[in-house]
Amino acid sequence: MKAEIITIGDEILLGQIVDTNSAWIAQVLFAEQIHIQQITSITDKEDHILQALADARDRADLIICTGGLGPTKDDVTKFTAAKFFLTELVHDPAVLAHVEQIFARFNRTMPDINLGQADVLANGEVLFNDWGTAPGMWVEDQGKVFVFLPGVPFEMKNLMTHRVIPKLKVFKSTEQVVNRYILTVGIGESHLAESIADIEDSFPPHVHLAYLPKIGLVRLRISVTGTDIDALNREADQWKEALAKRIGKAVVATEDISFEEVIVRAFSTCGYTLSTAESCTGGNIARLITEIPGSSEMFQGSIVAYANSVKENMLGVQADTLAHHGAVSEQTVIEMAKGVQSKLNSNYAIATSGIAGPGGGTPEKPVGTVWVAVAGRDQVRTKLFQFHQDRLLNIERTTAQALLMLWNLYQEESGF
Amino acid sequence: MKAEIITIGDEILLGQIVDTNSAWIAQVLFAEQIHIQQITSITDKEDHILQALADARDRADLIICTGGLGPTKDDVTKFTAAKFFLTELVHDPAVLAHVEQIFARFNRTMPDINLGQADVLANGEVLFNDWGTAPGMWVEDQGKVFVFLPGVPFEMKNLMTHRVIPKLKVFKSTEQVVNRYILTVGIGESHLAESIADIEDSFPPHVHLAYLPKIGLVRLRISVTGTDIDALNREADQWKEALAKRIGKAVVATEDISFEEVIVRAFSTCGYTLSTAESCTGGNIARLITEIPGSSEMFQGSIVAYANSVKENMLGVQADTLAHHGAVSEQTVIEMAKGVQSKLNSNYAIATSGIAGPGGGTPEKPVGTVWVAVAGRDQVRTKLFQFHQDRLLNIERTTAQALLMLWNLYQEESGF
Repeated sequence: MKAEIITIGDEILLGQIVDTNSAWIAQVLFAEQIHIQQITSITDKEDHILQALADARDRADLIICTGGLGPTKDDVTKFTAAKFFLTELVHDPAVLAHVEQIFARFNRTMPDINLGQADVLANGEVLFNDWGTAPGMWVEDQGKVFVFLPGVPFEMKNLMTHRVIPKLKVFKSTEQVVNRYILTVGIGESHLAESIADIEDSFPPHVHLAYLPKIGLVRLRISVTGTDIDALNREADQWKEALAKRIGKAVVATEDISFEEVIVRAFSTCGYTLSTAESCTGGNIARLITEIPGSSEMFQGSIVAYANSVKENMLGVQADTLAHHGAVSEQTVIEMAKGVQSKLNSNYAIATSGIAGPGGGTPEKPVGTVWVAVAGRDQVRTKLFQFHQDRLLNIERTTAQALLMLWNLYQEESGF
Repeated sequence: MKAEIITIGDEILLGQIVDTNSAWIAQVLFAEQIHIQQITSITDKEDHILQALADARDRADLIICTGGLGPTKDDVTKFTAAKFFLTELVHDPAVLAHVEQIFARFNRTMPDINLGQADVLANGEVLFNDWGTAPGMWVEDQGKVFVFLPGVPFEMKNLMTHRVIPKLKVFKSTEQVVNRYILTVGIGESHLAESIADIEDSFPPHVHLAYLPKIGLVRLRISVTGTDIDALNREADQWKEALAKRIGKAVVATEDISFEEVIVRAFSTCGYTLSTAESCTGGNIARLITEIPGSSEMFQGSIVAYANSVKENMLGVQADTLAHHGAVSEQTVIEMAKGVQSKLNSNYAIATSGIAGPGGGTPEKPVGTVWVAVAGRDQVRTKLFQFHQDRLLNIERTTAQALLMLWNLYQEESGF
């Protein structure tokens, strides 16, 4: 079954929000063996919506539209969809009662503007929205399924989970795709490709390899397409094992998990604990680690030491060190790493200090200057980075490099 | 000038990565008065790419394609573009020298697979990539501009900034769009819409209002379209002022900034400082605050107290409190907030403790149970939330609610 997503509204096109909805929908549908072929983000202009709906109907069996269902004047999806299906909107008393009840639950009076929320497509089925006031809608038309959902992530996710997925379960695809993943660390994309070129060349046409690089990491995805799911699983596993064996110790995972999850699992298995002392990363490393379920097994906590007084009082960095070497220095990150390791009683520790920008640079230490230290069971290692002007990019790159340094130290101290 | 973005590759369609590239490109082009009309994410299949290129050429003047330019076998963009333009790829010795120099800079030998990187579109201009090995390309064809960029965010951003934008400066749009923004806090979307309905009804056709809701916040965007930029600016300001006056004290910003930036600016102006003690949010609040340039003015730091020992030793939570009430309790978050406020010497403090899930729930405290405390200059306020099963959503909602609580307390204590 081929699916497409259409997101309606200007926020994504203006770059004001990142389209996290589509990624989430794609993941959820993927688990149902439904594959997104295209994601189209369009304006909320009527002709644009009509064109996108018509194009998607030509290509896909399932079209999921998000956005433009609210009560305000810029919400035109419902009216446009009625035109597209050559149908009308009808008042649904059950939806009105539902919307009134939502307001009652929060002890608020319902503004009249919400009366229009009870107007729904005459040719569709209502997907009751217990998490907001805009109802979702499910329309079957000319053998295709159209789903209309609000763009608010919380409402969209709940409607997908509790209303749409159960209805989709009845649809089955004849063509199946099985994916396998290999996560590698510390080997460049082209070196990796060269080292496995002969295996890749021997793939039959229904096997496909994708390279998904990130800072310091390359994820490989092996996709095998066919009809017999058991045979596909066996074949995918064989190719995965052949590739992983060839790549060797750069492989850190043979399933679809993040590098943070690799670290959380490895530390949890060994009984090791981690803490972080973060200046320029401002808690971003802690945030990424604690997003992983089960990270409380191995993560002690973090001291985000933005002010120098916090570096001194909470981490035990010497006033002398700060005065003579500055907050962004090798000496300071060493003391930060040792300080948090000792105070939070962890086996491993990460420390970061740098000038993320845009302000704060000097000729000696321009914006983008970053020191990272990782403290292990036996030693402390440091590294100086010279990144660029972009604050968010500097935080992201420092975070990625710090986790790579931690992993390398852990690997070496564990004799891998 | 109308622009579109085409992202090529399966990662976005599978939901493995969120399409942050497009949001970034949209923002950068917006600053150049170039407006993205559509973003299309497609597979790396040849016919799909050919169709998307043809469709985009029909609608837009500028088409920016990202992805599929690497050296590996799943990178087909260049070959497909050559077919689309009815041209061929030619070997460019200058590009090869450039790629070799990139490898030399990192003291690495260049794998042979990279030789193909020097093959570029015969009808295009090379955009030299100093940040990676895949060259960008700029093609003018039938009066339209096509730009091909690698999908790696770091390389794409640098190529856009240093190669593409300078070339785009020569293009000028006759139609201009001017936007103004109003950020409101604590008023629901439909109540807000009702309170400004008569103003919105009085808009002429070239003025457009969009509602952009998030948890606890609604951002309004007023767009005014025309040709005389000065007149547009004046008109946009007038509508903005009329709306802001009507909405009253729920307005927290009249420019396009995030709620975190509102807090950072307000605290910096008043000379107030903030610290956080985070358990279930794991540093996410600190991360969001420190992403704002200049946050070092007002942010002291954070203690991410994941382990109970850290709550005790670093924040001074009483062992008794943890034993009798548990880590997820009103008493614990009060002591966490007071502890971090005193130890990090800040005027305001936030504390969070909850069961983010998926594990750790009990019948009394199911997954999604969260306590938040905010400590101000005179008092500590607490609130209990009962969220749902999704770990990342629980972290996000706790973060948003904690910032709202902080803002309300700050407003009241400041007599606003």
